[in-house]
Amino acid sequence: MKARVNVMLKNGVLDPQGAAVRHALGAMGFDGVNDVRQGKVIELDLADGTSEDTIKSMCEKLLANMVIESYTIEIL
Amino acid sequence: MKARVNVMLKNGVLDPQGAAVRHALGAMGFDGVNDVRQGKVIELDLADGTSEDTIKSMCEKLLANMVIESYTIEIL
Repeated sequence: MKARVNVMLKNGVLDPQGAAVRHALGAMGFDGVNDVRQGKVIELDLADGTSEDTIKSMCEKLLANMVIESYTIEIL
Repeated sequence: MKARVNVMLKNGVLDPQGAAVRHALGAMGFDGVNDVRQGKVIELDLADGTSEDTIKSMCEKLLANMVIESYTIEIL
């Protein structure tokens, strides 16, 4: 089975990478870019039957820094 | 409007970050992790009416390195 985990900085946490992308898009002539946030996407190829709780545990122990990041899990 | 762009390394391109995550999960006792690929997710807050072609153009000019990366666009 495959699962996709999105890890984003929480709202309110400064995102300098996203800000850099926003400025760069503006400088390249793309108008109307109000905000950009950049995060990580992690695609996991797991043994069949791995529970969502196990994936949550992977996220909280390793994939995301729960102090500043939040995650979402999608089973594909 | 909001759009989410996923940028992943193409198949066949070595992904040392993903490999590091896979090894770390194994070392932490999570079994059955066959493969991990890590990429970027970029959430764009755009002016209403921005066309998908414009977003494609942003991806190809800035957000993804088309030599080694592929992207998908989701309009939220």
